[in-house]
Amino acid sequence: MAIRFSDAVNAIKHSDTGDILKLIAQPDMISFAGGLPAEESFPAEEIRKAAEVVLDGDAGKALQYGPSLGYEPLRESIAKRMNRIVKTNFTKDNILVTCGSQQGLDMLCRLFCNKGDTVLVEKPSYLGAITAFNLSGVNYVEIPGDGKGMIISELRKALETHTVRLIYVVTDFQNPTGITWSRERRQEFMDVVDEFEVPVIEDNPYGELRYEGEYLPSLNTFDTKGLVCSLGTFSKTFAPGFRLGWIAANPLFIEKCDLLKQNMDLSTAPFSQRICEAWLQNFDFDAHVQKIIKLYKSRRDAMLQAIDEFFPKEVSHTYPEGGLFIWCTLPEHLKSRDILKQCIERKVAFVPGEAFFTSEGNTNFFRLNYSCNDEATIRDGIKRIADVLKANLNK
Amino acid sequence: MAIRFSDAVNAIKHSDTGDILKLIAQPDMISFAGGLPAEESFPAEEIRKAAEVVLDGDAGKALQYGPSLGYEPLRESIAKRMNRIVKTNFTKDNILVTCGSQQGLDMLCRLFCNKGDTVLVEKPSYLGAITAFNLSGVNYVEIPGDGKGMIISELRKALETHTVRLIYVVTDFQNPTGITWSRERRQEFMDVVDEFEVPVIEDNPYGELRYEGEYLPSLNTFDTKGLVCSLGTFSKTFAPGFRLGWIAANPLFIEKCDLLKQNMDLSTAPFSQRICEAWLQNFDFDAHVQKIIKLYKSRRDAMLQAIDEFFPKEVSHTYPEGGLFIWCTLPEHLKSRDILKQCIERKVAFVPGEAFFTSEGNTNFFRLNYSCNDEATIRDGIKRIADVLKANLNK
Repeated sequence: MAIRFSDAVNAIKHSDTGDILKLIAQPDMISFAGGLPAEESFPAEEIRKAAEVVLDGDAGKALQYGPSLGYEPLRESIAKRMNRIVKTNFTKDNILVTCGSQQGLDMLCRLFCNKGDTVLVEKPSYLGAITAFNLSGVNYVEIPGDGKGMIISELRKALETHTVRLIYVVTDFQNPTGITWSRERRQEFMDVVDEFEVPVIEDNPYGELRYEGEYLPSLNTFDTKGLVCSLGTFSKTFAPGFRLGWIAANPLFIEKCDLLKQNMDLSTAPFSQRICEAWLQNFDFDAHVQKIIKLYKSRRDAMLQAIDEFFPKEVSHTYPEGGLFIWCTLPEHLKSRDILKQCIERKVAFVPGEAFFTSEGNTNFFRLNYSCNDEATIRDGIKRIADVLKANLNK
Repeated sequence: MAIRFSDAVNAIKHSDTGDILKLIAQPDMISFAGGLPAEESFPAEEIRKAAEVVLDGDAGKALQYGPSLGYEPLRESIAKRMNRIVKTNFTKDNILVTCGSQQGLDMLCRLFCNKGDTVLVEKPSYLGAITAFNLSGVNYVEIPGDGKGMIISELRKALETHTVRLIYVVTDFQNPTGITWSRERRQEFMDVVDEFEVPVIEDNPYGELRYEGEYLPSLNTFDTKGLVCSLGTFSKTFAPGFRLGWIAANPLFIEKCDLLKQNMDLSTAPFSQRICEAWLQNFDFDAHVQKIIKLYKSRRDAMLQAIDEFFPKEVSHTYPEGGLFIWCTLPEHLKSRDILKQCIERKVAFVPGEAFFTSEGNTNFFRLNYSCNDEATIRDGIKRIADVLKANLNK
């Protein structure tokens, strides 16, 4: 067949991540590779009741087509919660409900970027964002961080030398590094961004899952020009199986996103949105989040403790105050892919770091997830990785 | 703010359809403008039980992230049903579950088209497809029909003179015309398409809703080169509130769509997919479709009868064997937008035909929907339109 696919589809790189995922899908494998929420955290019984509330109410409307912006009461609930947690000043007019954050990434890149445009990202950055942006055929500038957020002098230099159409950052417990930007850095960042007037995606999927310290304000609160588009999701605090996320931004951006949404898939499922809203109205979201925090904090602590106990001192790691990930740095001569191969033989797995960069090289990093395994398994798995690391360092 | 949006977003035309929809949202308006399924046809009580089945089963998996291709048992059910109804020979490997057909339209255009490419469509064609394709910045060739499907000589001429990257057709009870392609025309069409090797979207949202005659086979059954991508949906036979549709195509196309889906929104909601599959397994889909057919057939008959009784003979109309729409043609000197304005004053509405064309002109058509109103209301509304038509013809 002589079919020609689009440039966007032809540019999707064959990644060996799929092959790795197959390898680590063995039942006796300890996997720190994924980023899934723990299934035991899903409020299944409450969801059953919420579904009953929806079907006992206006079932006809819940099962019919709905507005492309989303279900209005849910949009209001999202705005109110953001205002409380990350100190924004939103109403429903700032909110569009998406099929998960991933759709928000695709949608916002389609909103701001033509093929060949430049997107500025953190170094490293979230893999799923990079692959979503790739569909629009964009190029990248990577800006490194210093443990407190993006390095502002590097950001300024990049904005002075490139026509940047979009900036993408994860300020809270970043995927993959687990790092959180300081309040001061948020302010400095927005000062520069507002000067250059570039739209920003602030992706915040784990923000509520903070295990110590205080919630920090959204970049929106430092933004004087309405440039920040925040992405949120119910996947980590409710359940990913509903595919419910949102874009929070100024009403002009939301209006444009609404046009995109109408043409992309009409709307996010009204039935799912109404169940989520019924759950928010009838159950205690705060208490539920506290339960998840308790579960994951204990797992994070177990992993950090095991790393400190077993990992050789040549391997450094980040200290996440929340979220799902720890980022490890090997001495430069070690390749995390080689280490992974040996680890898989010992039935333990992680994600090599290269996938989180848009530049070549960067072969000596890996990401660990701690949300999906209990404490004993975490300790066992980290010990196995440590043994492989030691064997390679002593070669 | 000096924000520049993408070319795709800037190209979204301001349509006055939104304004019209607001006008006709008045409570005492008889609207034949929409295309919504009747809410009384949704199996709400069965859906409640299906949700219980899902949550009593493996709730953890139902609420977790799921495979981007879709829930495997649902993909199997879709393949089996297509094989029975439209005589395809599919397995689950031919099926990817989408967030409604609208997402399938966006996805397939992104799969095959670059900016500036040419898409071949029927004249007229489905408005929602055109606006989805517009996001990819494509151009159009329109091919007229003769009441039995696309005119093959015109199709051949277009394929000889343009590099067509994608063809879009609705062969069963087309939106907007209600026309169904004959079996012979399907064969002739695929003979030409296979010769030129152009991918085809066969959009079939209403195919099961046939009120007389026999189901006709999918274009897939005449396709020797694996070019046909069929779009299906549960919106008209189950409930649109789940946003569940599918793409059925050869496994290579499905594999590419899977890559797109991963990057567009990870997957369609696993919870919704499992409820739909539980409903299919526990209830009688065939009997449910028969109920909807009975409901809509009676409404179609009422509308056709009222048109024949009240409309002036200068206005011609199609005779749909199924689906939701009748297409009316005015004498060329009458503009359907002017007629609509007068109709709205008499509290009755339809969609002017221009929106369904990619070319200019075409001002003397309109579309009527009969699924959302009862028989008495249909008769009343058609009489009101007839009065306006007569007044304009007698001017």
